[in-house]
Amino acid sequence: MTRYKLTIEYDGRPFVGWQRQSNGRSVQQAIEEAVHAFCGEAVRVQCAGRTDAGVHAMGQVAHVDLTADPPPDTVRDAVNFHLKPQPVAILDAVAVSSDFNARRSAVSRSYRYRIVNRRAPLALDAGHAWQVTRPLDADAMHRAAQELVGHHDFTSFRASECQAKSPVKTLDRLDVERHGAEILIAAEARSFLHHQVRNMVGTLRLVGDGKWRATDVTRALQARDRSAAGPTAPADGLYLMAVGYSP
Amino acid sequence: MTRYKLTIEYDGRPFVGWQRQSNGRSVQQAIEEAVHAFCGEAVRVQCAGRTDAGVHAMGQVAHVDLTADPPPDTVRDAVNFHLKPQPVAILDAVAVSSDFNARRSAVSRSYRYRIVNRRAPLALDAGHAWQVTRPLDADAMHRAAQELVGHHDFTSFRASECQAKSPVKTLDRLDVERHGAEILIAAEARSFLHHQVRNMVGTLRLVGDGKWRATDVTRALQARDRSAAGPTAPADGLYLMAVGYSP
Repeated sequence: MTRYKLTIEYDGRPFVGWQRQSNGRSVQQAIEEAVHAFCGEAVRVQCAGRTDAGVHAMGQVAHVDLTADPPPDTVRDAVNFHLKPQPVAILDAVAVSSDFNARRSAVSRSYRYRIVNRRAPLALDAGHAWQVTRPLDADAMHRAAQELVGHHDFTSFRASECQAKSPVKTLDRLDVERHGAEILIAAEARSFLHHQVRNMVGTLRLVGDGKWRATDVTRALQARDRSAAGPTAPADGLYLMAVGYSP
Repeated sequence: MTRYKLTIEYDGRPFVGWQRQSNGRSVQQAIEEAVHAFCGEAVRVQCAGRTDAGVHAMGQVAHVDLTADPPPDTVRDAVNFHLKPQPVAILDAVAVSSDFNARRSAVSRSYRYRIVNRRAPLALDAGHAWQVTRPLDADAMHRAAQELVGHHDFTSFRASECQAKSPVKTLDRLDVERHGAEILIAAEARSFLHHQVRNMVGTLRLVGDGKWRATDVTRALQARDRSAAGPTAPADGLYLMAVGYSP
């Protein structure tokens, strides 16, 4: 038996999220069915970061065990063949040792959130970004974001359904940068609470449009109360970019 | 009567191209119908660069005359409202003098062509880029591209249906740049022949994968024969980025 580490890209729009659910098609199901179609094995694919419905990935990581041990490139190409025409692609497959675990071995997760800040609707990026029509001050958002970086109790930015044992996390990076009409927010941490990135983005947006100041973000964080922070930003703009592992 | 200059973004996938045709829905028809729904006027919208089926735009320009003269921002917002849910958006509307003509007044057109150079299918960019699986040497493509820059007879890169009076054009810029797996090709000229950008890209791809050298591109250009150059690259990767006008 060989364990494979898969790096995966997907468009979250047609899926109920990463995880198998009774109410629709998940990315996990799509991949597990493609593996089965390829080699006849009924597998369970475990990922590093479960994404919600509509959330995208450019670098999700998962592992899967196959009894036959086909060459990794064959796994990649054959699974991709059977995934068609679903918008899921295995970017890379490598054989790893059996103690590698996509979720437990991960030491960092990087997300990107895309805002398109303009009046006109999104013709090319519909479902792939959050359109915000009011002009946003990205510099003010970046400064306020620094209030969230570090080791904190993130209860105010945690979904009520969150299953993490502790709300205390270390946020390593939260950068906001404007490129023309596009505002990119890069978030990095060992791990995140459920909806944490979207709740931070929804809160920073209040700073961007002048309703809040950086001190209001600090106060929301210190309140340890979800209702003290801003609304949840839509899934459309969120991308799981990369998962890091120790060498 | 007021003339408006419209800057337009669209996803070319669901359309037969810019121009009205009997075989399906065009971008022009979508906009003309939205204008009619907004103000009841039956208009003709004229664009700067007719794009083919599947070709996208981030900065198409068109003009339209309205008998009532609503404020330009109202034109933009109201037409966008009536365009929904079609993937066409008016980015900007400005009132211009009646001698402005989107096509005839244009002094430059900029196109971008996106190649994604990797084995895995495109999950997020399906229909928005050309996936080329064989590794391409973007530097060699850039060097060969310089053979095409300048004042030349571009017959070898011209579609048989092209209606331009002369095949002689001045290509001001043809730059090829790699960013990770993505190869971006930027083309700029006063005007282009039909399929010229896609035919140049299809030819440069032969250089990128080592089948051709720069001298083969020169020879193809000098042959003044469409069959001497490479195949037409797919519509998916092509974007009309901007149209320039003298101040």
